[in-house]
Amino acid sequence: MSQLREDPVTGRWIIVNVEDPKPPDFFKTEAHSKSSKTCPFCPGNESMTPPEILVLRKKPDAKAALGWLVRVIPNKFPALRIEENPARVDLGVYDKTGGFGAHEVIIENPDHDQELWDAPLEQVELVLRAFRDRCLDLKRDPRFQYILIFKNYGAQAGASLEHPHSQLIGLPIVPSRVAGEAKGAARHFEKTNRCIYCEMLTQERREKRFTVHEEKGFFVLCPFASRFPFETWILPVDHEASFDAITDDKITGLAAVLKKTLAKIKDALNGPSFNLMIHTMPIYGKELKSYHWHIELIPHLTRVAGFELGTGFYVNPTSPELAAETLKAR
Amino acid sequence: MSQLREDPVTGRWIIVNVEDPKPPDFFKTEAHSKSSKTCPFCPGNESMTPPEILVLRKKPDAKAALGWLVRVIPNKFPALRIEENPARVDLGVYDKTGGFGAHEVIIENPDHDQELWDAPLEQVELVLRAFRDRCLDLKRDPRFQYILIFKNYGAQAGASLEHPHSQLIGLPIVPSRVAGEAKGAARHFEKTNRCIYCEMLTQERREKRFTVHEEKGFFVLCPFASRFPFETWILPVDHEASFDAITDDKITGLAAVLKKTLAKIKDALNGPSFNLMIHTMPIYGKELKSYHWHIELIPHLTRVAGFELGTGFYVNPTSPELAAETLKAR
Repeated sequence: MSQLREDPVTGRWIIVNVEDPKPPDFFKTEAHSKSSKTCPFCPGNESMTPPEILVLRKKPDAKAALGWLVRVIPNKFPALRIEENPARVDLGVYDKTGGFGAHEVIIENPDHDQELWDAPLEQVELVLRAFRDRCLDLKRDPRFQYILIFKNYGAQAGASLEHPHSQLIGLPIVPSRVAGEAKGAARHFEKTNRCIYCEMLTQERREKRFTVHEEKGFFVLCPFASRFPFETWILPVDHEASFDAITDDKITGLAAVLKKTLAKIKDALNGPSFNLMIHTMPIYGKELKSYHWHIELIPHLTRVAGFELGTGFYVNPTSPELAAETLKAR
Repeated sequence: MSQLREDPVTGRWIIVNVEDPKPPDFFKTEAHSKSSKTCPFCPGNESMTPPEILVLRKKPDAKAALGWLVRVIPNKFPALRIEENPARVDLGVYDKTGGFGAHEVIIENPDHDQELWDAPLEQVELVLRAFRDRCLDLKRDPRFQYILIFKNYGAQAGASLEHPHSQLIGLPIVPSRVAGEAKGAARHFEKTNRCIYCEMLTQERREKRFTVHEEKGFFVLCPFASRFPFETWILPVDHEASFDAITDDKITGLAAVLKKTLAKIKDALNGPSFNLMIHTMPIYGKELKSYHWHIELIPHLTRVAGFELGTGFYVNPTSPELAAETLKAR
């Protein structure tokens, strides 16, 4: 027996297997092969990458690229470039712009093998600080409309280098998925004067159907209308629209919760490839009261096929109830 | 150098590599392994599947399941079932319905190895007729809001059985992607009194930047804002909102064009896994003048990663100009 579930923010529907939800060991995880090539992200090879934009170092007075803990560099093969023109050009029925934008890489650790879940808490804090500080810096350029921070871990999730890293893309346009989310949340606020995400947390505190854990000001859950098996969200408990407004204090809480949640996913699913995305309000968004930033974690366990591509519906073989229960127990 | 391009119907943007668009041999195609298991879709094994809903036979008077050319059966592991309740249930902030719907399999050929591009024209015509006739039959049940016909070819595109087959899913809800497309087209019509798809064809006839070929009443192109490399659309030249209004005459033209287009894709890309989706107007849709049904063909050559999941933006390493030129030359 399956159920159709509507995401209360976007109106997107999923089909979820509630009768026979697939457990973690139903999914095969491919091994992460180790390359023997020289890694451009390892200490000592800094000259293989473009010059850095931001470095967080052990000693503030050390020379650039020596003793760094986190390094932010422009992507060597950028999807977008800061020199391009963001003006719209009319091509009959079509519209285009130049490939204006920012595409940066956040090298999360000097250690080639130490991923976020293995790193010391302070290291994860530094990564989150780099995320925030790059957003705040880029926002000063009025041409940016949206900044997405994301991490692809494992070849199946789209990673081409294995050294721990995340990416940032700054866009001259608010992407449709983000606009849809902000609009859905605003629509709910207009009707009820309440943030839909805050309401979800309130309902979850009462019902505890989808909760993984709550601590240090952050709530971890597997959302009601999960598109993917073991999809997991991390939300700040206090209402906040923009990720980049996060304080150092809250970064400490988030670092602990992120580390723990990623460790649970790794443990439950045998180290799957995954994507991490920070969903935050568009830069000129007005949905301060209705939008609520959050992190989405999506393990790569299923394939997107014709039905998903044709409709935007997703078929989820695992119920989020089972996913939450599994992750909670780890 | 890249370009940002907006899809004129949905407003979805892509980033496309126009400076160094990747040619067909940039992409690795995985071999399609052949299973040695007994195939439930092969003639003689009809009892391994649920009883058929529709059979197109060699001789109209032959017994069921003997001498069939196309067989439509309920999916043995359906995502949705006709017995479930489509009524909405309120769960606090959430909405769900029972898993009501139809999930059918169209077995396209008695021959285990004869895919659409190798099959005789008459066989492809029969498949398209089965598509149409199943839509017309299901539409009589007023609970259906949308019917999607799609084909997953190859394991990478989500196929679990290798015998030539397509699928049909009938839904009690208009999916968000379809609704967005219909709405975008309606918005354009309100402004201009013209169908946006018809306008694309008019512009293409003049400029020929994205055209693969046009014949027998159908136009084949690689769309301006292609999300995926070698994404290819087939549109009827005459304006028509619903696929299921197609006449037998037009089916003959479509069968020839579909066969040829799939052969070109197979040839250019070394037999890639792909998805085929028929985009048609929602059953109770009112966009008769503005919506224009079409087939989307998406070879599986790239991975959807964090950026695509987080934004709905797609990064396309191949320009549709190069894709169209490549396919045209085949």
